[in-house]
Amino acid sequence: MIIVMQPEANEEMIAGVEAKILLHGLNVHVSRGTERTLIGAIGDERKLDPKVIESLPGVERALHIVKPYKLVAREWHHAQTVIQVGNATLGDNAVCVIAGPCSVETDEQMLASAAAVARSGARMMRGGAFKPRTSPYTFQGKGVEGLTMLKNAAATVHLPVVTELMDVRMLDTFLEKGVDVIQIGARNMQNFDLLKEVGRVDVPVVLKRGLSATISEWLMSAEYIAAGGNHKIIFCERGIRTFETAYRNVLDITAIPVLKRETHLPVIVDPSHAGGKAWMVSALSCAAVAAGADGLLIEVHPSPVNAWCDADQALSPDEFSVLMKKLSAVCTAIGRTL
Amino acid sequence: MIIVMQPEANEEMIAGVEAKILLHGLNVHVSRGTERTLIGAIGDERKLDPKVIESLPGVERALHIVKPYKLVAREWHHAQTVIQVGNATLGDNAVCVIAGPCSVETDEQMLASAAAVARSGARMMRGGAFKPRTSPYTFQGKGVEGLTMLKNAAATVHLPVVTELMDVRMLDTFLEKGVDVIQIGARNMQNFDLLKEVGRVDVPVVLKRGLSATISEWLMSAEYIAAGGNHKIIFCERGIRTFETAYRNVLDITAIPVLKRETHLPVIVDPSHAGGKAWMVSALSCAAVAAGADGLLIEVHPSPVNAWCDADQALSPDEFSVLMKKLSAVCTAIGRTL
Amino acid sequence: MIIVMQPEANEEMIAGVEAKILLHGLNVHVSRGTERTLIGAIGDERKLDPKVIESLPGVERALHIVKPYKLVAREWHHAQTVIQVGNATLGDNAVCVIAGPCSVETDEQMLASAAAVARSGARMMRGGAFKPRTSPYTFQGKGVEGLTMLKNAAATVHLPVVTELMDVRMLDTFLEKGVDVIQIGARNMQNFDLLKEVGRVDVPVVLKRGLSATISEWLMSAEYIAAGGNHKIIFCERGIRTFETAYRNVLDITAIPVLKRETHLPVIVDPSHAGGKAWMVSALSCAAVAAGADGLLIEVHPSPVNAWCDADQALSPDEFSVLMKKLSAVCTAIGRTL
Amino acid sequence: MIIVMQPEANEEMIAGVEAKILLHGLNVHVSRGTERTLIGAIGDERKLDPKVIESLPGVERALHIVKPYKLVAREWHHAQTVIQVGNATLGDNAVCVIAGPCSVETDEQMLASAAAVARSGARMMRGGAFKPRTSPYTFQGKGVEGLTMLKNAAATVHLPVVTELMDVRMLDTFLEKGVDVIQIGARNMQNFDLLKEVGRVDVPVVLKRGLSATISEWLMSAEYIAAGGNHKIIFCERGIRTFETAYRNVLDITAIPVLKRETHLPVIVDPSHAGGKAWMVSALSCAAVAAGADGLLIEVHPSPVNAWCDADQALSPDEFSVLMKKLSAVCTAIGRTL
Repeated sequence: MIIVMQPEANEEMIAGVEAKILLHGLNVHVSRGTERTLIGAIGDERKLDPKVIESLPGVERALHIVKPYKLVAREWHHAQTVIQVGNATLGDNAVCVIAGPCSVETDEQMLASAAAVARSGARMMRGGAFKPRTSPYTFQGKGVEGLTMLKNAAATVHLPVVTELMDVRMLDTFLEKGVDVIQIGARNMQNFDLLKEVGRVDVPVVLKRGLSATISEWLMSAEYIAAGGNHKIIFCERGIRTFETAYRNVLDITAIPVLKRETHLPVIVDPSHAGGKAWMVSALSCAAVAAGADGLLIEVHPSPVNAWCDADQALSPDEFSVLMKKLSAVCTAIGRTL
Repeated sequence: MIIVMQPEANEEMIAGVEAKILLHGLNVHVSRGTERTLIGAIGDERKLDPKVIESLPGVERALHIVKPYKLVAREWHHAQTVIQVGNATLGDNAVCVIAGPCSVETDEQMLASAAAVARSGARMMRGGAFKPRTSPYTFQGKGVEGLTMLKNAAATVHLPVVTELMDVRMLDTFLEKGVDVIQIGARNMQNFDLLKEVGRVDVPVVLKRGLSATISEWLMSAEYIAAGGNHKIIFCERGIRTFETAYRNVLDITAIPVLKRETHLPVIVDPSHAGGKAWMVSALSCAAVAAGADGLLIEVHPSPVNAWCDADQALSPDEFSVLMKKLSAVCTAIGRTL
Repeated sequence: MIIVMQPEANEEMIAGVEAKILLHGLNVHVSRGTERTLIGAIGDERKLDPKVIESLPGVERALHIVKPYKLVAREWHHAQTVIQVGNATLGDNAVCVIAGPCSVETDEQMLASAAAVARSGARMMRGGAFKPRTSPYTFQGKGVEGLTMLKNAAATVHLPVVTELMDVRMLDTFLEKGVDVIQIGARNMQNFDLLKEVGRVDVPVVLKRGLSATISEWLMSAEYIAAGGNHKIIFCERGIRTFETAYRNVLDITAIPVLKRETHLPVIVDPSHAGGKAWMVSALSCAAVAAGADGLLIEVHPSPVNAWCDADQALSPDEFSVLMKKLSAVCTAIGRTL
Repeated sequence: MIIVMQPEANEEMIAGVEAKILLHGLNVHVSRGTERTLIGAIGDERKLDPKVIESLPGVERALHIVKPYKLVAREWHHAQTVIQVGNATLGDNAVCVIAGPCSVETDEQMLASAAAVARSGARMMRGGAFKPRTSPYTFQGKGVEGLTMLKNAAATVHLPVVTELMDVRMLDTFLEKGVDVIQIGARNMQNFDLLKEVGRVDVPVVLKRGLSATISEWLMSAEYIAAGGNHKIIFCERGIRTFETAYRNVLDITAIPVLKRETHLPVIVDPSHAGGKAWMVSALSCAAVAAGADGLLIEVHPSPVNAWCDADQALSPDEFSVLMKKLSAVCTAIGRTL
């Protein structure tokens, strides 16, 4: 850690900072420049909170030099992690497409969805049984019954399933029902008790980025899961909140190369929630793959107009089929497979 | 709801929208303008999801006309709600100051804090027993033991307590320990299962605004609580996330007059978390009260330099005492009491 | 325009709004719903400012139904516009790469840059002679002399040039020097007097998006240029400002499909300024082309480490050559040429 | 400057950074920590661009330690600057209210405005003759004629005037007409050629904050003016752009105490543009003064409903009179005068 002293800091203040650093078991190095005195704290700086140092008299700023995350960092684990889920893989040369409806509605809808996404080459199936809705007065999901419907439909096409866990009390049920991949939604990215619990199980986790989460905070949330022992974590970029109102969220395409550099874990993209409109999905999907994403999470519904939620963002089976052909060509261009 | 059709929409498309509206039990009114056809859906539009309509062929946009919230809206409940907690009130002419340390550390620290905040005129005491921390490697709070320490300390000065509930499984413990006001933190503002549970109990709730939550989403989260039967909700503005990096968050002062107009529930401000530095707290507190806030949530620690978390943002007892005198003058200037 | 009245609006207030609309030469249509009265203003609503209506007693909101831009809108000009600059084209099936250094430094640097970018297939050359710098104490560009150096270097490889105009008083000099495409920088996107002046000349304009400009504001700035008679406008997305601090700006990839739908004018992307680091340029360039961009504006310097500004974001000639091969493959995959 | 090397940086890379620093005339200090090597560049670091260092092999980050601004910094000029304009002062104990209409319309409107604002205690008059409008099809201001109307109206009540300069070619006219204070609008905050020109004259400048300008960029824009010799600069906070859509902009109240600490120059607030609605002005004005603002810039129109622009945000003379009484009480509470 580097501590920048205020220009008017005196010797007593400098000594106070030194004492605090030594108290935490780190060593001290003082450097007197022309305009500022700098103090270096040498050792395991993760033990030292910058805010504690910044509260001391005479301190202008305290800066961490090393990253606060470790288990998820590529710096500490150079090899790319590949996560196997049934026959699907995440993090290797194949781009993994996960598709299905926003929410589980009926057995018919789920069976039709499963057939459609499998036919076009999806490797996993998605579908929400528990829905985080802004309004308490809208459809909240089919619940436990929905988990069964999702598993049954996916079984007919031999695909593993991904579905969102919102309430920590439902984790055992998810395990009993055989959910293959647990999704933590954007609104729960910093629900630390939930992260701790999924960190204790041996099921892969898709960790969606919070609407205004920084890359660093997102990596720290993954660190919560990893710290519990579960290292099967998949990052999912789904658009961030900005000042722009012409579309729901801004897909942060830069996050892909940056995460691929910072972490050894797979990175996927949800183009459906990012843009919020079905007609944007094709361009955003191609961009995500071209930028290096390891997978996509796409909403497909047998009849989008009749979907019970997010009707405007789901692709029809035909649209999905066209998109998969386009994605296949982009994958080839960059030396990957679909 | 108003539906704006695309300029090239034909009669068949218009008929399709009409059919969908009638199916939901609303009436239809079509208006053909010079550049666009508009369709009005007349009736209880809360039943109709704009996304469903926007997925129909030929539709450009669908706009809700009425607000999506009802129980918390001043439009439906004109009189200001006053919430009584022990001897303290929130929402009447008196500005209620809630103060105490960021986290519960030791009995000594809590007793000293209680004495200090009560002496200067605080009406409630705050203190975190469960701490939402970005990193899994930092202090996570004293837990249940901390609740006891908080209650014991506050009892010596006869103040009710406010403390944060992060995990739904802890709600019963909060009730057993006699927590007077439950705080829902910024990161859990859209943890809908947690909102539903606190909606079922008869304890006032401080609902902090999410870091990038809109006013509308915040009101909808309150609506979740109110829909469960608990109408004792206190909004707490604590700064929003923007592009600015010179301070932690931007205190959204405009939210105060806007919320006071939109809802009948009390609105308070947390100047300590917003700015993130102790030296900013005085200016932000005075501004919040001058803008019409019903209360403040201020961090005070007997020895800020030794605080276990957020050491740089707590006021010392002396600083808090000076601030309370200043606030008292501002209250008088605007016709309120402290 | 649709005017939503407040629930408590009375007949007198409704009549007041009607009178104001009629005064502006539009017709009125009143619709009384269950919770709100709506008033429609029928006719050329561009004559009516929503703010004027919102200032009237009893009005809750006034909403424009049609888009405020016209000359640049695809709604009014369906065919895609193709802009010819020397042998290069923008807006047709070929993706146009414009490359060169951030700033013009020396004749040697410019000649080496020109040779490098032409060799790898760039269709135009870029280079800044006037530099908008945050600090008055840093290099401000070579000025008029730089324009000559840029033109001379580009002439050796028969490429047209793009360079930024910051000061309206320099426009005549730009024309005399034969600048082929005038760039309006992000900081000047709403410098309306500058927009008006470049609207009066017959030289294509690259209009960069402001750091926090909405799509609508950006289109309106183009409308300023078009209203003067110059319809040769090229939109350039260069990253927007958000809360994220891990990279300079967030490349708004969604803006590409959205602009391609809203306007008939070409859309290009500047991946160098967006990410701010040379190692991000390849991923962002591929993503931009895959999302449908008509061109790219890339920084290339013969020796990035020695560049006088933005040294960390320029590609070396070798890196640029590798990128062009990759882009060529992506173009083929989506049915375009490079 | 501190340079953080990548963990895998070797001795050759470290030597390369050292050589670059020495080349720029600074001294070098190398510190080898447990996880990273740090290199300190000692001397006048303003000569060294972090981007140049970050482009060198093996460098992870380069951080400036000192602030990039100097003339405007309180660190270099401790005493508060007081700017005198006619009988008004900015920066001393008196809070200076500047009021008037958004735009100059007619002589009658200006005379009525002048009488109204002077009567209630405004110390300067505002009014726009040149208007920066998002659309080229809306009223662009009365131009030079408007300057005369503004000066004439203000002369009847012996008030100095503030008005916006958009085009550098108009500066001489502003000086001839006797404009007392030149306003640089939010959209021109980084129009560096305009800043340089107003830096050469001896007229005070109100520098509005750009919609998404950081505090640091804002101070650097002021540094441009000061570097030209004009040190009479007044910062004006007018709301920033965020994700929130319930109001036009978010008034950044925290900027007030932060700027008062960072710079010796006066800081004022424009509550009218920030919120965008007349009914918000009172709460925001009181908050701004309570937070320490040296002045306010308030829109007042003799008949807001008939204003030619921003009709929804102007106060009527009666509303302004009520507000001034409220502000007077708040000033007294915090030990200032109005």
